[in-house]
Amino acid sequence: MARVRVGILGASGFGGSELLRILLFHPEVEIRHASSRRLAGKPLWEELPNLRGATDLTFSPFEPAKIAQACDVLISALPHGGVAAQAVSEALAANRNLRVIDLSGDFRLKDASLYEKFYGGAHAAPHLVKESVYGLPEFFREEIAQARLVANPGCFATATLLAILPLAKAGILSGWVVVDAQTGSTGLGAAPTARGHHPLRADNMRAYNMLAHRHMPEILQAVKRVSAQTIDLSFVPHSAPMTRGIFATAHARLPSGVDGERIEAAYRTTYAKAPFVRLLGGASPESRVVARTNYADLGWTVLGDKCVVISALDNLVKGEAGQAVQNLNLMHGWDEKTSLTWPGTTP
Amino acid sequence: MARVRVGILGASGFGGSELLRILLFHPEVEIRHASSRRLAGKPLWEELPNLRGATDLTFSPFEPAKIAQACDVLISALPHGGVAAQAVSEALAANRNLRVIDLSGDFRLKDASLYEKFYGGAHAAPHLVKESVYGLPEFFREEIAQARLVANPGCFATATLLAILPLAKAGILSGWVVVDAQTGSTGLGAAPTARGHHPLRADNMRAYNMLAHRHMPEILQAVKRVSAQTIDLSFVPHSAPMTRGIFATAHARLPSGVDGERIEAAYRTTYAKAPFVRLLGGASPESRVVARTNYADLGWTVLGDKCVVISALDNLVKGEAGQAVQNLNLMHGWDEKTSLTWPGTTP
Amino acid sequence: MARVRVGILGASGFGGSELLRILLFHPEVEIRHASSRRLAGKPLWEELPNLRGATDLTFSPFEPAKIAQACDVLISALPHGGVAAQAVSEALAANRNLRVIDLSGDFRLKDASLYEKFYGGAHAAPHLVKESVYGLPEFFREEIAQARLVANPGCFATATLLAILPLAKAGILSGWVVVDAQTGSTGLGAAPTARGHHPLRADNMRAYNMLAHRHMPEILQAVKRVSAQTIDLSFVPHSAPMTRGIFATAHARLPSGVDGERIEAAYRTTYAKAPFVRLLGGASPESRVVARTNYADLGWTVLGDKCVVISALDNLVKGEAGQAVQNLNLMHGWDEKTSLTWPGTTP
Amino acid sequence: MARVRVGILGASGFGGSELLRILLFHPEVEIRHASSRRLAGKPLWEELPNLRGATDLTFSPFEPAKIAQACDVLISALPHGGVAAQAVSEALAANRNLRVIDLSGDFRLKDASLYEKFYGGAHAAPHLVKESVYGLPEFFREEIAQARLVANPGCFATATLLAILPLAKAGILSGWVVVDAQTGSTGLGAAPTARGHHPLRADNMRAYNMLAHRHMPEILQAVKRVSAQTIDLSFVPHSAPMTRGIFATAHARLPSGVDGERIEAAYRTTYAKAPFVRLLGGASPESRVVARTNYADLGWTVLGDKCVVISALDNLVKGEAGQAVQNLNLMHGWDEKTSLTWPGTTP
Repeated sequence: MARVRVGILGASGFGGSELLRILLFHPEVEIRHASSRRLAGKPLWEELPNLRGATDLTFSPFEPAKIAQACDVLISALPHGGVAAQAVSEALAANRNLRVIDLSGDFRLKDASLYEKFYGGAHAAPHLVKESVYGLPEFFREEIAQARLVANPGCFATATLLAILPLAKAGILSGWVVVDAQTGSTGLGAAPTARGHHPLRADNMRAYNMLAHRHMPEILQAVKRVSAQTIDLSFVPHSAPMTRGIFATAHARLPSGVDGERIEAAYRTTYAKAPFVRLLGGASPESRVVARTNYADLGWTVLGDKCVVISALDNLVKGEAGQAVQNLNLMHGWDEKTSLTWPGTTP
Repeated sequence: MARVRVGILGASGFGGSELLRILLFHPEVEIRHASSRRLAGKPLWEELPNLRGATDLTFSPFEPAKIAQACDVLISALPHGGVAAQAVSEALAANRNLRVIDLSGDFRLKDASLYEKFYGGAHAAPHLVKESVYGLPEFFREEIAQARLVANPGCFATATLLAILPLAKAGILSGWVVVDAQTGSTGLGAAPTARGHHPLRADNMRAYNMLAHRHMPEILQAVKRVSAQTIDLSFVPHSAPMTRGIFATAHARLPSGVDGERIEAAYRTTYAKAPFVRLLGGASPESRVVARTNYADLGWTVLGDKCVVISALDNLVKGEAGQAVQNLNLMHGWDEKTSLTWPGTTP
Repeated sequence: MARVRVGILGASGFGGSELLRILLFHPEVEIRHASSRRLAGKPLWEELPNLRGATDLTFSPFEPAKIAQACDVLISALPHGGVAAQAVSEALAANRNLRVIDLSGDFRLKDASLYEKFYGGAHAAPHLVKESVYGLPEFFREEIAQARLVANPGCFATATLLAILPLAKAGILSGWVVVDAQTGSTGLGAAPTARGHHPLRADNMRAYNMLAHRHMPEILQAVKRVSAQTIDLSFVPHSAPMTRGIFATAHARLPSGVDGERIEAAYRTTYAKAPFVRLLGGASPESRVVARTNYADLGWTVLGDKCVVISALDNLVKGEAGQAVQNLNLMHGWDEKTSLTWPGTTP
Repeated sequence: MARVRVGILGASGFGGSELLRILLFHPEVEIRHASSRRLAGKPLWEELPNLRGATDLTFSPFEPAKIAQACDVLISALPHGGVAAQAVSEALAANRNLRVIDLSGDFRLKDASLYEKFYGGAHAAPHLVKESVYGLPEFFREEIAQARLVANPGCFATATLLAILPLAKAGILSGWVVVDAQTGSTGLGAAPTARGHHPLRADNMRAYNMLAHRHMPEILQAVKRVSAQTIDLSFVPHSAPMTRGIFATAHARLPSGVDGERIEAAYRTTYAKAPFVRLLGGASPESRVVARTNYADLGWTVLGDKCVVISALDNLVKGEAGQAVQNLNLMHGWDEKTSLTWPGTTP
């Protein structure tokens, strides 16, 4: 059978490079276009040296409509704040049969006022927001399978939601929820900045966007989807001295009568058929173990009514490109794990 | 005037090595003994190569009573769980005029049952517990000045208490308080272990002792000392891929009517005369900036009734050896800053 | 067709864990035994958390003869100095049809006196030394294909030989050759030691075994195999503050009349059909780009008669387990690249 | 007695920030100006958070002539290639009594054609080149003491020269000398670049400027100063995954009859009165041990006629700002060690 033709917008960034790494080995997919405004015409390996020898592809020019016409699926790894929304809109207009997975935050929030507040301006393609589907496969598998436009979740949001949604779904998450999370430096993207300058970023912990990070509203929106109870969220992201990974520690108070067994049951039930969520019980996940993989590891501890849930995943894979491919697999009825089972390394 | 004669027990470990680094340059102090069971007779620099050229001292045998008789002050950097308590007890018995600073957890907890629970056994010198003074200079300066036996606080406890005690003291800390904290690998001490093996520890985030860390009871005990209100603490320590530093993020809910200005005032007032606490307002501290120094940097954010306070310090300096020297300075009426003002580096 | 049955001795160490990671996805292979003296009976993922969810295998007891009888191929990841030689000898005695790949240094050196000098004692299975084949596929492909016993090269030796053998083979390497090389901390193996303690190993460069490293004689032995000219080697290994990788910088003086074009030709010709050696011309390889892959990247610079050749590879993959699988593929006539083409990551 | 008034040009960069850190604690010096074009008027600690609480100074505008008139000594931490030369020239013209230490490469090379080749253009102040003194205190102490203009050596050059000059001086260094050296990322300076982007720089080894680095001609020039014999140098710099440090491994062949004892004597004699060079004999220096200090550690190994010398120092201190202060001390007849004895840390 013919392979599904995939186009990638923004292929030279970190998210794009991980999409390429995964999709080059995907048996059902043909990468038709990997676009980069800056690098059009150059071989992929000039920017992405890990792909040297793996492919002869060159970067395509940034032409969303043209690429859309040549492809069955478009994956956008463009930046949020309009660039992605605009390109996705053009692409969908150019090909009625196109299906799109967008890695940016542009199509995640249903509430326009929240979008404007957190992304700093009016939406560039508001007509598409309603139909977009939030691409967290462990919870919205069926919708994703049918979607024309998937909004791939943020990396912090994925880590947090995998930790707390089972409790929300079970009706035992309410009140104040506190999440502290750490990200590796690849979360900064490929462009050099003062914050990512090695002499200052190495060996350093800092927090940023305290109580004001963009992933907060998408976390709350997803909780509302699965639970009648509301939560009050304190979320603080931190940058940690590593390159890969999201590590999230979530704290909640349990309703009277809910004990460790019930918590364990909530996780076991929710993820019984989730191939990429691994349950560690009382042990802590480790970010190194899931680095460069599509796995998310979860552990939890209950003491009295206090509950701590910890999740670790790779920000660029399960937190971005790998999750996009997982969604791609679901959208085509392929095995959800296709091209995503590589297990990472121990040391 | 004659210099004060100091003896160090356990001088070859990481805490001891930092004591030596600081005290070798202290104008009021003479290091009379630096003991190590394993290395007695060897020059310090064989184990502590940073001290090559800085001193001709050799390690003394581990003889607490004998060292006590030759010194005015004893600083113990021995492990908790009885080793420290036993040696301190012997030393105080051998010299009635001796003053002691103990870096272990053995003399921090006043409640014997808590000690047994968190340190795994009966106390080896219970007769000394009552008189011991908790050595957090920013809050207990006067007591420290008079003390015969100072229990130097734990590194996580110092970072957490500097963050939350100003609120407790101002009567605006109550209810559930959540603290997530990260430590560098020097917190493991000098002996190699699987947890500290570089191939596994590098590039890795993990949590440990969730809701069960030894520093929790000393945090709660100190809060009780300064506030009539009780708190309920969730504390989760993490190991971060760096060598130096404690980075703590504390979350609290504020009573109605308490706003950012009042919080700022609490910090400004509490630390008006604290030379080693630096207030950053809404900015995040960075662990690299305080590494290898005695400074603790604090930042905070208030949004509605949610308050986040962040503190960063070096686990071996302000979290251990530096704080011990700060206490030593207070005990002798010297300038609190003596030998402790070195400012760290920017990159 | 039935899969080839593979047994791994020493499967819980770093080399063994990488063998498992690769062979679990090898389409021609069935892992029949993964032995560990210490962990017999336990699931692999208890020690190797990256394999959680990837396999239900448990560690087998350390029984070389029994494992040999149940397998077609044995790969030993046991330590050198007799442990490996003894086990390999027992295994080969127990199964006449067995083929063996040994990852240790025990079967690399043909000269018994050199073995004794560099490995500190008499050989435990001298009768097998003669037939062993040095498993560097880029140079000894045909012998490897026929071998019963393959001695897998050392990581430093592989990096150095890939850099200098093309020149030796072309008859333009002679006189004094200087190689400085860096290794990541995974080269230490899985057992914690003072040298691998994170607080001391992180952020640190040091040299060790200057002019006396065990990989020197195997480098010289291989040079002799391909060239009539002798070289005089200065080799200095260094430990670098990273977990994965060998990075080697080799210096030579060229004979009169040999220029950059001739050097380039030597590399292009030698590696024309080598799928895992990538030639970068005048650019420097980067250890990060080849980390966790079976690729070795080479770059070179010629200025007058001075030649610098640089090679980078992953010590546990192309420098150990990956190269073993490459040899396994050659021994069975499978595509050399089977299960080894995963391309690493850019960031 | 009045303190010597010092002005710093380019004070916000990494070299400048280290000068400030050291000079703020120098008992003979008053920092009169710390200039920064970009940050004029702002407190130092806004850019250099380590100095928060240590000083109330603000950055001065970049006005070399005006600063020169207000100071006794000017230290320039401006970039090479004319910026430094131009500013130094203006400053010296504005104050006849001014003495200058220049941290750039602009005044190191006496040969104008070499300057043009390695620094890419004609010299901006050729009239000053002749009188400039190469500021390597261990070898040119007397000249430095008298100098009006000191050209502070490069970091790689300092590490290399401290390793090989004792042999050159003893007349036992000749022929081909090979040096491979590693630098930490602070060598990149404070401006973010692709090469310094943390996701790509972390965990990575690479070489650069193979056989073509700017510090090569100053190394050869210094060798010529102390020896009648010429050497042929292969120098390859590498970037290592750490923030601080230069680690250099030098290889030479010894003349017949020269053994380890003679080598040891050369080092012991040369550095008998050098307070910042520490001799480790056969042990390897470690970059971590000298990080953030003005010490350079040296070790060496002799095997037959092969000699390996290894040196480690901090690129920003002994390789830049610390060495500048050492020169400043010599120029004023102060103890060479003033403000420079802080010993680093073991872990």
